[in-house]
Amino acid sequence: MEDIIKEEEIDGIVGTILADYKGGKNIDNTDIFSKPDKKEVRDIIHNLFRIMFPGYYKDKNYKIYNLKNSLAVTIEDIFYHLNKQVMLALDFCKLRGVMTEDERKAESYRICREFFNKLPFVRECVETDLLAAFDGDPAAGCLEEIVLAYPGLYAGTVYRIAHELYLLNVPVLPRLMTEYAHSQTGIDIHPGASIDKYFFIDHGTGIVIGETAVIGQNVKIYQGVTLGALSTRGGQKLSGKKRHPTIKDNVTIYAGASILGGDTVIGENSVIGGNTFITSSIPADTRVSIKNPEMDIRTNDNKHKHEEVKQSDEWYYMI
Amino acid sequence: MEDIIKEEEIDGIVGTILADYKGGKNIDNTDIFSKPDKKEVRDIIHNLFRIMFPGYYKDKNYKIYNLKNSLAVTIEDIFYHLNKQVMLALDFCKLRGVMTEDERKAESYRICREFFNKLPFVRECVETDLLAAFDGDPAAGCLEEIVLAYPGLYAGTVYRIAHELYLLNVPVLPRLMTEYAHSQTGIDIHPGASIDKYFFIDHGTGIVIGETAVIGQNVKIYQGVTLGALSTRGGQKLSGKKRHPTIKDNVTIYAGASILGGDTVIGENSVIGGNTFITSSIPADTRVSIKNPEMDIRTNDNKHKHEEVKQSDEWYYMI
Amino acid sequence: MEDIIKEEEIDGIVGTILADYKGGKNIDNTDIFSKPDKKEVRDIIHNLFRIMFPGYYKDKNYKIYNLKNSLAVTIEDIFYHLNKQVMLALDFCKLRGVMTEDERKAESYRICREFFNKLPFVRECVETDLLAAFDGDPAAGCLEEIVLAYPGLYAGTVYRIAHELYLLNVPVLPRLMTEYAHSQTGIDIHPGASIDKYFFIDHGTGIVIGETAVIGQNVKIYQGVTLGALSTRGGQKLSGKKRHPTIKDNVTIYAGASILGGDTVIGENSVIGGNTFITSSIPADTRVSIKNPEMDIRTNDNKHKHEEVKQSDEWYYMI
Repeated sequence: MEDIIKEEEIDGIVGTILADYKGGKNIDNTDIFSKPDKKEVRDIIHNLFRIMFPGYYKDKNYKIYNLKNSLAVTIEDIFYHLNKQVMLALDFCKLRGVMTEDERKAESYRICREFFNKLPFVRECVETDLLAAFDGDPAAGCLEEIVLAYPGLYAGTVYRIAHELYLLNVPVLPRLMTEYAHSQTGIDIHPGASIDKYFFIDHGTGIVIGETAVIGQNVKIYQGVTLGALSTRGGQKLSGKKRHPTIKDNVTIYAGASILGGDTVIGENSVIGGNTFITSSIPADTRVSIKNPEMDIRTNDNKHKHEEVKQSDEWYYMI
Repeated sequence: MEDIIKEEEIDGIVGTILADYKGGKNIDNTDIFSKPDKKEVRDIIHNLFRIMFPGYYKDKNYKIYNLKNSLAVTIEDIFYHLNKQVMLALDFCKLRGVMTEDERKAESYRICREFFNKLPFVRECVETDLLAAFDGDPAAGCLEEIVLAYPGLYAGTVYRIAHELYLLNVPVLPRLMTEYAHSQTGIDIHPGASIDKYFFIDHGTGIVIGETAVIGQNVKIYQGVTLGALSTRGGQKLSGKKRHPTIKDNVTIYAGASILGGDTVIGENSVIGGNTFITSSIPADTRVSIKNPEMDIRTNDNKHKHEEVKQSDEWYYMI
Repeated sequence: MEDIIKEEEIDGIVGTILADYKGGKNIDNTDIFSKPDKKEVRDIIHNLFRIMFPGYYKDKNYKIYNLKNSLAVTIEDIFYHLNKQVMLALDFCKLRGVMTEDERKAESYRICREFFNKLPFVRECVETDLLAAFDGDPAAGCLEEIVLAYPGLYAGTVYRIAHELYLLNVPVLPRLMTEYAHSQTGIDIHPGASIDKYFFIDHGTGIVIGETAVIGQNVKIYQGVTLGALSTRGGQKLSGKKRHPTIKDNVTIYAGASILGGDTVIGENSVIGGNTFITSSIPADTRVSIKNPEMDIRTNDNKHKHEEVKQSDEWYYMI
């Protein structure tokens, strides 16, 4: 086929594109070596999962008969690549201000060390998430099935890893991690959100948890739930403000519910029914559901039937 | 960079992690060789698609001029890997009880043989799904476009494969298959669900079909539909009970509808409108829609307009 | 394990499958070389992104010190593979009628040349989308973060590329492109939709934009929005008709809203609130929201509380 494409054709296209690159567009930032790399981020997550769940992620290089040596190899590998990505992130958009290369090196090293010291805590949280998932889902045959197959535990674990880097003030990298999990699961948890132990997401697709959401212990969330913001049309001016709700301990939020606003607090032990739309606080020990939704029910030949369709008294427990 | 990471740093982290591994966590199950492998499962699905749709999945090793030989190679490959994964699954969490290795070998072989015998039936179902998709979507240019591009047919085919393994009482493996399809499409069909022929999913993202749902022939489902459970807070105690609805023949369920509960039956030929929320049975030949939803309509300067916005009489046919 | 699988077992299965292939099923189209290939399409998108965002997609072969040469190599590579896929697409299902191979060669070459000439325009649009995303999201630290991490910009860019091929009357290939983006992001934009500049999708999962939707400048769309059709049960007879809504300039559509029907027009500067369901036109400069949704609120011990939960006056600005 090479003989089909005329060389002057390619030259012409190259000329057009090169001319276009001179238009000063933001999408033309060509300093490719100053940015974190998505593939590297994905590999770091994959390797961290081997440490998080040592029995679940098989690898030819991971020799079980010498756990210590293989751990050392894995950790050195993660440290090396994470350090490189954090250094790039520290320079990214100068979000952390201007640093010399030496300053970035030192800061990046410090961050990586702190991050590894946080891993036992992250694993402690993930262990509680696993137990909460098993406790909450009658379809789970055993704990191991959840580790292997449940997108909620996957996205939650990536969030917990990314959140630690977010707390260490690393730009962009945490978001790249949670966006990778988002693309795999449909679960979009901003790394800035704060989520306590025993967190359970079932099914998962279509979940959005915003940057400033705060979630207590033992909270259950089902598919299609949004913990979102109320716009006051502030755009960039709202950066840093608490825009997303607070969910207290032992709250369950059923499928399709939207809970919105930085001042909205859902009190302890409350149950938020499926498809509700909540923009103000709910007290503790409360069950909220949409009122029996009125429906229009007719025969297929379009004559009205006034037949009453009794809704279950338990419909707000949609799962 | 190696010279930058101090050896004692790595040693320190390794020590911390190893100490943490001694905490008896469930996430530390280290017997990695006793578990089905996600990558193997993905490869098995990919190879099964080459058998399901012999003309659509190209491969260098798949030589069209000798279909019989290439089929034999592909089938031996699938048999070998499936057999291995089924053996691992049979040991998984002892969900099938304790078996000797010989028992597992025999049972796994039996299962694989039965599974392959089911493939013509699976292909028969998938053929009907393809015809239903073409019939239902005016945007489809031809049948082949649906096989190549439609996530609904993809997820449905993976479900039909996984369902056969589920019926053969294989633990965990069927769920790994449907979760892989879920991650690719946003369509979450539990392998335990029972779905008859001519099944059509359009768009797909955000669909959840629970473990004990039963779906008749010629059913159409659009994006965002949940066939879910009503919680009675039973958790693991509900395992095995029918918790999800029954959908009879020729039912159409439009986008965003939620149909919930194990006793809920949608009768034949009924049409369930978009965004409805249904927790009790609907008779046959019935059209259900949410009542013309009241909306608050104002000018942007915030003065109320009482202008009537007439809703189309056909809005429940949202697709 | 090879010695475990009996040769006659494989022979038996092969015989069963071969017999099944003789049933004349549509899923058995065996002319594998006449179809566009999904992996090739994915590679073409990946390479086009290197041209769209020259600084963001790193590659060993992409040497920044000689941009012209590396561009020429990349463009020749894309041209070659795109040309091959377009040729296959032109033959696909004979949707473009019967052509000789020479006619297809000439037409494919012409299409590829036109397509490359459109790239500066596509880049112009994507640049405006980037600016709109930064302007609209307080969580975005800088423009580069959006290019690196936001699924909305990714899906929008793939759509803009695919749309140009759609306008050049290429069958199936544009849909394969947008379906690839759909699988990565949960955002399903049909390549036939028409979308003007400064388009912003936030979060993204669960968005469906139909084939004949028309979207003006500076439109913002949040997760879970459907721009869909109203079925009149026409199926294939509706092919080619305008079935999806028109959205005028400066409209914002919040999470979970459904706007349906080919005659539905949302006027300029209007704001469509979260979870609304709209099937008829809305005038310009209007804000639409669902009326304060009635909720049933009880204590956990099931006694009614008649407590009034005041909804924020701004709840329709859910983001």
